[in-house]
Amino acid sequence: MKIDIHEKNNYTLLCDFYEFAMSNGFFKAGFKDKVVVFDMFFRSVPDNASYAISAGLEQVIEYLESLKFEECDIDFLRSKGIFDEAYLDYLRDFKFECDVWAVPEGTIVFPQEPLIVVRGPIIQAQLLETMVLLTMNHQSMIATKANRIVSAAKGRPVVEFGSRRAQGYSGANLGARAAYIGGCVGTANTLAEKIYGVPALGTMAHSWVQLFDTEYEAFKTYADVYPDNCLLLVDTYDVLKEGIPNAIKVFNEVVVPRGFRPKGIRIDSGDIAYLSKKARKMLDDAGFEDVGIMASNSLDEFTIQNILLQGAKLDSFGVGERLITSKSSPVFGGVYKLTAIKNNETDELVPTIKISENVAKITNPGFKNLYRLYSNSNGKALADVITLHDEKIDDSKDYEIFHPIYTWKRRDIYDFTAKPLLVQIYDKGNLIYKLPTLEEIRSKVKQELGTLWEEVKRLDNPQEYIVDLSYDLWKVKDELLDKHGKNYK
Amino acid sequence: MKIDIHEKNNYTLLCDFYEFAMSNGFFKAGFKDKVVVFDMFFRSVPDNASYAISAGLEQVIEYLESLKFEECDIDFLRSKGIFDEAYLDYLRDFKFECDVWAVPEGTIVFPQEPLIVVRGPIIQAQLLETMVLLTMNHQSMIATKANRIVSAAKGRPVVEFGSRRAQGYSGANLGARAAYIGGCVGTANTLAEKIYGVPALGTMAHSWVQLFDTEYEAFKTYADVYPDNCLLLVDTYDVLKEGIPNAIKVFNEVVVPRGFRPKGIRIDSGDIAYLSKKARKMLDDAGFEDVGIMASNSLDEFTIQNILLQGAKLDSFGVGERLITSKSSPVFGGVYKLTAIKNNETDELVPTIKISENVAKITNPGFKNLYRLYSNSNGKALADVITLHDEKIDDSKDYEIFHPIYTWKRRDIYDFTAKPLLVQIYDKGNLIYKLPTLEEIRSKVKQELGTLWEEVKRLDNPQEYIVDLSYDLWKVKDELLDKHGKNYK
Repeated sequence: MKIDIHEKNNYTLLCDFYEFAMSNGFFKAGFKDKVVVFDMFFRSVPDNASYAISAGLEQVIEYLESLKFEECDIDFLRSKGIFDEAYLDYLRDFKFECDVWAVPEGTIVFPQEPLIVVRGPIIQAQLLETMVLLTMNHQSMIATKANRIVSAAKGRPVVEFGSRRAQGYSGANLGARAAYIGGCVGTANTLAEKIYGVPALGTMAHSWVQLFDTEYEAFKTYADVYPDNCLLLVDTYDVLKEGIPNAIKVFNEVVVPRGFRPKGIRIDSGDIAYLSKKARKMLDDAGFEDVGIMASNSLDEFTIQNILLQGAKLDSFGVGERLITSKSSPVFGGVYKLTAIKNNETDELVPTIKISENVAKITNPGFKNLYRLYSNSNGKALADVITLHDEKIDDSKDYEIFHPIYTWKRRDIYDFTAKPLLVQIYDKGNLIYKLPTLEEIRSKVKQELGTLWEEVKRLDNPQEYIVDLSYDLWKVKDELLDKHGKNYK
Repeated sequence: MKIDIHEKNNYTLLCDFYEFAMSNGFFKAGFKDKVVVFDMFFRSVPDNASYAISAGLEQVIEYLESLKFEECDIDFLRSKGIFDEAYLDYLRDFKFECDVWAVPEGTIVFPQEPLIVVRGPIIQAQLLETMVLLTMNHQSMIATKANRIVSAAKGRPVVEFGSRRAQGYSGANLGARAAYIGGCVGTANTLAEKIYGVPALGTMAHSWVQLFDTEYEAFKTYADVYPDNCLLLVDTYDVLKEGIPNAIKVFNEVVVPRGFRPKGIRIDSGDIAYLSKKARKMLDDAGFEDVGIMASNSLDEFTIQNILLQGAKLDSFGVGERLITSKSSPVFGGVYKLTAIKNNETDELVPTIKISENVAKITNPGFKNLYRLYSNSNGKALADVITLHDEKIDDSKDYEIFHPIYTWKRRDIYDFTAKPLLVQIYDKGNLIYKLPTLEEIRSKVKQELGTLWEEVKRLDNPQEYIVDLSYDLWKVKDELLDKHGKNYK
């Protein structure tokens, strides 16, 4: 019995087989050391949103730090019967030598922007594709979804409750981490606190109530054990006729006499808007104005927005399957594309492009950089500009931006500060980046969201944020399109 | 930096925090040894399908076999400040003592049927909830989705290509395992072959083609390295004007002269139906009637069904994000519900029920069993019957089944064989089940599918398969509903 839990995981082989087929080919055909550049970017945000939150870089680094072909991996690859022994020797001695740039975790990002840039020998840079994409796609998707849900809750705490419906164990563990980055206050998953420090929360399930002859007895026993942390699930039988009256009774008989205030009640089924209004009145009338009401039944940003519009009296939310799987849009489509190839004679990185009949699938060529332009007068983000790697944006004077396709759409940006978003993470295979803590990442998200206009952040039909190309990059792309365009005539 | 890859994973704490809060409560309130029964079941199949494939039992067993609270887990729990030292001592010495029954992996299953039944002390049975659900929900969902896609492909091989878009690492690894159970012939994920033996396949990406000055040169180099396994990706520039002519040229110049037949071509973009018909003609005209065409662009059961209806000439499929996330329906809603509580005086397991205003959410009470009735004349599955645990269905005579709600819908089953579907896995905490191999599980799926009528299996609007309750179980449920029903008057 061999499974991927409880044993030392080495994810070096969590790699599409074609990466190995190609890298063996690079090796045999004599161009394994050809230096290239790959970009990781995405083309659209799930849920038709305008912005995403970049997450997963810490795990990408962890993967790179432990990238190693064990003898059993070599033996396994040999058994496939297509690899050269010299190539397998190369893998056995594999030492990561690439340069890597990335946007820090918690950065607000937009379609087409390079989130990770890898420069190095093709035989290495190619091999990273699967794990870089898997890691960044998963966590960026969940952080972004969580942020939408937190935003719909308008300041009320949201707890991630989805482990049981997650798509696998790292779906639950790293999903809880990403949800915390996106703004959730905690998780139901105990392991996510132990590993990542995401606060784990929770009190009782329906089975607790079912185990006793009466709901009152169930609540009383719970309150006896946890008088200082008494949050009762009130919907096992009938919320208004039994659940809340029993809860109030136990609050008065057990919790208050011991000098505590009750923590709250939770409603997990039924018409949450209606029940919460009734519940609020019943609690208030009993002198428990300070006792919160939590809802937790099939919620996401749209249901939360709706029940709050209906006047629901809720103080916090537990959000499960629709968050942990990003149910309404469960794929984050990040890609990893070749953008430049070194010319060994001139030592230049020559931009390359992937053409497609689908214009949205045409890549931005070249070794690139990324800037965000902030207004000096109000601190708001005005636009992002993708540039060639060595370009600087001079923010001491006005800067003209223009739409990369409708080039007549142009605009002068003035009185701004240009901030580069990509940070160097690896220098020739050496980690040179100091990883932020999870709390720092979480704060960064909050701080960055404050620089976005509300129009860009709204849940439905948001305004598209401007991401343009610098003139120099646009020219490189235009020339490549022109060169390849003859095929489409 | 602490993350859940590359280190020994112990998933004992991958458990909703409320399970610990409750079990500490069971402990303190003096009923930790109360024997109960929990059922794991689901209420509906993703994609409005009628059947699902049960998968994940091997990983549930692996979890149970390694369930252990390490000292660092105890320290972590202590730090939460709500647990009794005596409870923590209990966890430190935790020894699994439950009885477990389950349907073997690869069994075709239907809503409401118990897939896993756990009987044991509440303090233990309750703790398993999160991992049992997470494991079974994830793999059953992917196996079921894969089976739908494989069925749409009508005998053409389907390869799982989704690692880069999976929701985390186990989403990719165990997703590949589950897809193989569901009928895929292989995966792109190399690690899934090393760990589980799912065949890993793949040849080249667009980056291979981009790396060379011309597509012809790229193909020629690849064919030189892999003349015996030459499958070329033909859509980097223009499929019909360049990709296929270049492929044919290289097949003729490199592959055939070395005594091999080409493996095929792959099309990853554009109008697959149109392109594949043109490609087929071009390959045939060049004498490559035996060379297959693979498609791999945003496919699922519906797109495959459609392009085949349009007369696409395709021989195999690579299916990525829509399979590995079950994109059109990314949640499998299995639940784990308390169904019986032992009366310590009579030693009887007393059935318990969870009532809900939503009738579909009312549980089937009691310690149960599950039978499938097969026609002796044609081997087809006629109906499933959920019974009390000790009930036997006597198939030597006619058996009357009836609808559990519309009880006037009744029918005599005759000339049938009743097969129990639940197998005992654990006896007082001891594993007594011999795990099947992955190939055996895969074969079981194929064999079981053969016993289902086509009407039940169709992708759109399938016929609902009959799952009834035995009279004795129905009576228990009816009496409990009647008893609790007064709350709804």
